[in-house]
Amino acid sequence: MYIARLSSSVRTMSTKVAVVLSGCGVYDGTEVHESSAVLTHLSRHGAQAACFAPDKDQMHVVDHTAGTEMSETRNVLKESARIARGKISALTELPAEDFDALIVPGGFGAAKNLSTFATQGADMTVDPTLSEKIKAFHAAGKPIGLCCIAPVIAAKLIPGVEVTIGSDVEGTETWPYAGTAGAITAMGAKHVVTDVSQAHVDKNNKVVTTAAFMCETDIHKIHDGVGVMVSEVLKLAK
Amino acid sequence: MYIARLSSSVRTMSTKVAVVLSGCGVYDGTEVHESSAVLTHLSRHGAQAACFAPDKDQMHVVDHTAGTEMSETRNVLKESARIARGKISALTELPAEDFDALIVPGGFGAAKNLSTFATQGADMTVDPTLSEKIKAFHAAGKPIGLCCIAPVIAAKLIPGVEVTIGSDVEGTETWPYAGTAGAITAMGAKHVVTDVSQAHVDKNNKVVTTAAFMCETDIHKIHDGVGVMVSEVLKLAK
Repeated sequence: MYIARLSSSVRTMSTKVAVVLSGCGVYDGTEVHESSAVLTHLSRHGAQAACFAPDKDQMHVVDHTAGTEMSETRNVLKESARIARGKISALTELPAEDFDALIVPGGFGAAKNLSTFATQGADMTVDPTLSEKIKAFHAAGKPIGLCCIAPVIAAKLIPGVEVTIGSDVEGTETWPYAGTAGAITAMGAKHVVTDVSQAHVDKNNKVVTTAAFMCETDIHKIHDGVGVMVSEVLKLAK
Repeated sequence: MYIARLSSSVRTMSTKVAVVLSGCGVYDGTEVHESSAVLTHLSRHGAQAACFAPDKDQMHVVDHTAGTEMSETRNVLKESARIARGKISALTELPAEDFDALIVPGGFGAAKNLSTFATQGADMTVDPTLSEKIKAFHAAGKPIGLCCIAPVIAAKLIPGVEVTIGSDVEGTETWPYAGTAGAITAMGAKHVVTDVSQAHVDKNNKVVTTAAFMCETDIHKIHDGVGVMVSEVLKLAK
């Protein structure tokens, strides 16, 4: 594989992947473990990851011990930097032409800060900068990976895209958010049922999705499912 | 292994491990990826993890994009809950007698919120509740795992303990914080040089340590090194 990378390009020794974060913490930002899994798997594959996030206020701040709103303001970029260990740039500065793939981890940040899915469901809008970047990657035939709730963003922007958020049977203990599949269909996309250990690959659109924490399960299964998504994204980037 | 666990105890089907967090984000709290690695590896081994953190204000809040202090106050328990996905208790509520092992991930939170190492070096003090809990686990012959900067806490509390923070050669690009080894020695502990892929096991004290992000390296190597530490802690807990 190392040889394949070396021979595929002299200019770039490894695949360059932009990772778009949306804060830090499952209830108002990026899901910490999904983003850590994305970065860990990219590193293991020898890919180069660079983190980006919108430089704007979060929708709100949630006390993660209570699930209640706190009366303070936090900036999405500054909070995302906690996951990126300070190595992060504003999303406006992402040069799509310099990257081979784009990945968006989940967490409510994807539905609150990167889009308005949390409040508007199928009538949601996507952050304009992210919308522009995703359309640029898609138009250039570059793969896009998303997990957990983030696939709703692809569903909104890419007509007829196939995505998975895992199950489509709402309200079970294992799949508490599976109603999202209905919203995905309502936005004109196709929802594909998968297990948390799998990723769905829409080969035509080069969109790869996996359920991750849409499923209430052991954290190592989330880590491994995200690993399958990352691996499929890198395959498509070659 | 599953059969071994089943036969070892009817009451507890798996090893119970308390994970002590210190906020959320490398520069003022728990290192996100180290804590995610700890929880992921514990899950993969079939251990039961429960998260705890002190219910008190952080030493300070750092803007992770700039490395500068922010003029706000955050609570260690509430911020740690971002990593624990809300499933966390105050450290005062940790019943040492109900757990088989204790693990403290790194990040500056271990040196700012769990101890005063960041400001006082070898003259540091340890959070009184954490001090009491660590002494209880140690006295009961239960293993304690620590990574990154957190081993200074064991160095302070357990006379003559052997720990590693990786290298002891200060100021290199790969090991920017290796001067910590000198402080560990000054506190009466023994520092053992290791690579980031290894963990040092002090069999007498049942203390397991690994360098993690004391080393500037690929994130998957941190993940794997933490995995070695977790695995050694679980072996000692049997």
